[in-house]
Amino acid sequence: PNTAVGQIYTDSTSTNKTPANQELGKSTLSSLSEKIDINFLFRSSLEFPSGSENQGAIRLNESRLELRGDLTPELSFRVRYRLNRGFAPNSLDNAPGAIDHANVTYRFGNEKKWHLTAGKQSASVGSWEFDKNPTFEYQYTEYVNRQLNLFLLAMKLGYDITENHTFQVQLHNTFNNDFNATFNGTGYAKDGLRPSKTPLGLYVAWLGNMFDRKWQTFYSYNVSQFARDKTNHGVSIGNQITLDRLSGYLDLQSANLAVDYPNIGSPAANALGASSPAFVPTFLQDVNYKTAVLRLDYEFIPKWFLTTKGYYETASHREDGGIGDNFRKNMGYWAGLEYKPIASQDMKLFTYYYYNTTRYNNAVAQANANQKMHLFAVGVLYFVNAL
Amino acid sequence: PNTAVGQIYTDSTSTNKTPANQELGKSTLSSLSEKIDINFLFRSSLEFPSGSENQGAIRLNESRLELRGDLTPELSFRVRYRLNRGFAPNSLDNAPGAIDHANVTYRFGNEKKWHLTAGKQSASVGSWEFDKNPTFEYQYTEYVNRQLNLFLLAMKLGYDITENHTFQVQLHNTFNNDFNATFNGTGYAKDGLRPSKTPLGLYVAWLGNMFDRKWQTFYSYNVSQFARDKTNHGVSIGNQITLDRLSGYLDLQSANLAVDYPNIGSPAANALGASSPAFVPTFLQDVNYKTAVLRLDYEFIPKWFLTTKGYYETASHREDGGIGDNFRKNMGYWAGLEYKPIASQDMKLFTYYYYNTTRYNNAVAQANANQKMHLFAVGVLYFVNAL
Amino acid sequence: PNTAVGQIYTDSTSTNKTPANQELGKSTLSSLSEKIDINFLFRSSLEFPSGSENQGAIRLNESRLELRGDLTPELSFRVRYRLNRGFAPNSLDNAPGAIDHANVTYRFGNEKKWHLTAGKQSASVGSWEFDKNPTFEYQYTEYVNRQLNLFLLAMKLGYDITENHTFQVQLHNTFNNDFNATFNGTGYAKDGLRPSKTPLGLYVAWLGNMFDRKWQTFYSYNVSQFARDKTNHGVSIGNQITLDRLSGYLDLQSANLAVDYPNIGSPAANALGASSPAFVPTFLQDVNYKTAVLRLDYEFIPKWFLTTKGYYETASHREDGGIGDNFRKNMGYWAGLEYKPIASQDMKLFTYYYYNTTRYNNAVAQANANQKMHLFAVGVLYFVNAL
Repeated sequence: PNTAVGQIYTDSTSTNKTPANQELGKSTLSSLSEKIDINFLFRSSLEFPSGSENQGAIRLNESRLELRGDLTPELSFRVRYRLNRGFAPNSLDNAPGAIDHANVTYRFGNEKKWHLTAGKQSASVGSWEFDKNPTFEYQYTEYVNRQLNLFLLAMKLGYDITENHTFQVQLHNTFNNDFNATFNGTGYAKDGLRPSKTPLGLYVAWLGNMFDRKWQTFYSYNVSQFARDKTNHGVSIGNQITLDRLSGYLDLQSANLAVDYPNIGSPAANALGASSPAFVPTFLQDVNYKTAVLRLDYEFIPKWFLTTKGYYETASHREDGGIGDNFRKNMGYWAGLEYKPIASQDMKLFTYYYYNTTRYNNAVAQANANQKMHLFAVGVLYFVNAL
Repeated sequence: PNTAVGQIYTDSTSTNKTPANQELGKSTLSSLSEKIDINFLFRSSLEFPSGSENQGAIRLNESRLELRGDLTPELSFRVRYRLNRGFAPNSLDNAPGAIDHANVTYRFGNEKKWHLTAGKQSASVGSWEFDKNPTFEYQYTEYVNRQLNLFLLAMKLGYDITENHTFQVQLHNTFNNDFNATFNGTGYAKDGLRPSKTPLGLYVAWLGNMFDRKWQTFYSYNVSQFARDKTNHGVSIGNQITLDRLSGYLDLQSANLAVDYPNIGSPAANALGASSPAFVPTFLQDVNYKTAVLRLDYEFIPKWFLTTKGYYETASHREDGGIGDNFRKNMGYWAGLEYKPIASQDMKLFTYYYYNTTRYNNAVAQANANQKMHLFAVGVLYFVNAL
Repeated sequence: PNTAVGQIYTDSTSTNKTPANQELGKSTLSSLSEKIDINFLFRSSLEFPSGSENQGAIRLNESRLELRGDLTPELSFRVRYRLNRGFAPNSLDNAPGAIDHANVTYRFGNEKKWHLTAGKQSASVGSWEFDKNPTFEYQYTEYVNRQLNLFLLAMKLGYDITENHTFQVQLHNTFNNDFNATFNGTGYAKDGLRPSKTPLGLYVAWLGNMFDRKWQTFYSYNVSQFARDKTNHGVSIGNQITLDRLSGYLDLQSANLAVDYPNIGSPAANALGASSPAFVPTFLQDVNYKTAVLRLDYEFIPKWFLTTKGYYETASHREDGGIGDNFRKNMGYWAGLEYKPIASQDMKLFTYYYYNTTRYNNAVAQANANQKMHLFAVGVLYFVNAL
């Protein structure tokens, strides 16, 4: 892997720009390590969280195995799974949460500018936070962690307009469990909602490189259905910069969910309703989520990095009923120090401090106490490209 | 892999004829890709099933990883597991349903004509439907899907009489869960049945190649015990043809199960009994299952294939009591179109239509409604030989 | 692997002495099989256990996959997991029981004499029984099987004093589940115990080679906390001998557990208390466990081995209350015969007889019947070094 800050292409979570794709012209894929990759994604740290219920401990933060390869100029495959999640399949897609990637890519057409990716894959969503290899991303926004369906069954069609600009259209399952299983899992009332006969969605995305890859764009629009006749919309604007010693991203998003199936804001509204005797908890409808997240990494002396991240997220209710705008806010930041002793290897010793708070406004503040958490961590991370 | 229709040896589900076995004389296993294989079995499709309860979705139909190798002329190993099943072990064999193969083979004797395979392996049952790599088998009979214990702990002894004829004797566990766990799982009454002290079985099988491998036979006889003093018998007659552009198989089977532990016919009989107040559900005894299944694949123009399959299955009750012959029938067929763009790779774009129906006769028809299901699918499959 | 008896270094369970560590001076890790190892740990046998509730069956005794490698002279990684355990993570460490190893090692300092290992790893406990590759260890003491937390999240710092002597200090989680989950899992009363805010422990260990590696030592001291202000202590003395045709180990240990969270002796005491109406089961406090275990392997003619093992374990209660010393004893032994047909491969055909008994003394004998079990097994084992 190229070890310049932020230019590590082989570790991208998404297959949007695979290294093979870029280098197919240069090589005949003759040697084994050009043909296949075996990767191990590892991060472990000693964590001291605040809160009387939390115990300090050494944790296995990330542990994923990856096998990918380019069999011919036309055909690639990618398998990546977590070693610390169960492998029982979800009800709708027959794939477990443990699998991130289980897909194949077929490149075709003039100069192989078209590609089709089928199977479990990453959502074509304009989020550099999500695109970054999880080995290196200590803590996530709720947008990535809970709102997005990150890894999903899909058929993705891409077209490379030039070397630096790609368009993608991705047909995908909205959610990985079916309608009834989702309601059964929460115990919520259906409140008149009916299952969509085809609970699918579509991402349309543009990935661009500008100014010699110093500025990268990943912009996407999504439309999807979870319940019948209830349509969700979302826009994501991701910008990434990569300079000599400074790299970072700024991602912005806004999504209108006709049904709050990610269940981020609904618990707060249900807690408010719980005081009424006849109230039955359910998913909120017509919720808007917004996120802004900024990460910056700076190599202040060779091998030593400062890393910072901050985010601000809001949930608003677009129907009448007293819940209103910004009824829930989620904010957080981290600041950390990293040491990367071996230039050729993505191994770092690190320490960071993290703060997260969730706050409630308007009527729901009566029934939901604000939450906050401090965390101090020290540990080791290593994106191992074993082969 | 040899890419002629139906002559793909490296992807056989069973180890009955491993490529290493056949080529050990030719090679010294010097290079890595001759020594080990890493395979990824993949199929994913967008499916539209009939039925008001079913949602259309993209599904991960198959996702299995395989590692196999020939360490010396005497010793081989094989590991294959599904990425979308839990890994908690079954109660009797200490192996999970996710594992298909976890075995080693030891070849010995004059010209290494004898081989012993120990560990979790495929049943030595005369079924080409089961022997076919699951990547390529869109839908199965109930015989393969539910009646057979496909992957089981066993000790298999084989002898190659000539290059084209092999005999096998396989000592195996009848079922992967123990007697009590099987009853607890269904909630059925034991009805006087007691656990077998050694719930084992034996397959005796002949695999033959005739007319320059154009006709292949896989005939087997099985005797096994699940409950004490209750013996099951089964005969399977599998025939496979492989011509230039046409390939296919015709499998026939009949099995007498002293106890219906696969629980295919018992639910129908229990539904009938449920009207009596004192009735307690249990496994039917003395059930006969029969299956006929025919698959044909035809390369009508280069790279383009027509694929069809049809099956007919019956369940009969051999005791008096009104349930009688053919009280349950299961029938189905598919017709599909496949496109294989890259000659050297087992990747196909496909579409197929599938129909399945289950029908009840005699007394049980009063308590069980006939079922039917239509499915239309379009997707991608790829048997990836990564190494 | 070196195939002399007992000198198989590549298969050690612990990373205490990795082959790479020893050979880094000799090689530039140029070839693939020097750089990475892919291993498959396999043992399967037909077992006939005594006891009316036990069914004879073929079992998958061991099935683990391992991937390890040395990427540079400074950096190694190791992943090993069982194929027959669930992958849902434990509550405290976010790692599943299925993972044995998911760690990275960083060597640094003068002549790379220091090494730091982070992630899930084996406990630095002076037990050759545990250090032995599980492929070859048919049955374990309760010490290894139940008392020790074998594979745990830790940060281990080691220093090679000479080529033959290493010191290790390992900071580790005491247990893999958190305090509340452990009590919820057993249903026990907390009895005034409170969670430790940092339920960590420390191993200090010495590994030594003497007389040209004929005698190897592994001595360790451990201090740890599970409940607040309740400290556990343990000493383990492991000795291993490796002669031309004879090898073996003698491990001795004594541990004082302030809280019996391994729950070995507590069930017997709870069964005694159950006669009192107001009794609520809980973990015993101030328990002492002792173990002596001896294994000997002898190659009596080339390729043929006799293997024997015997162990004696006691549990004592150090508080007043009538339970007293040696209230529970666990004893067992095996004797077996092994045949290793291929000199270069760690594959063996084996058969053994095993006997185990658990006996109760003092007051708890009234409420707990002595247990015994005979087992006869015949099978195949193979530590496959596939790459």
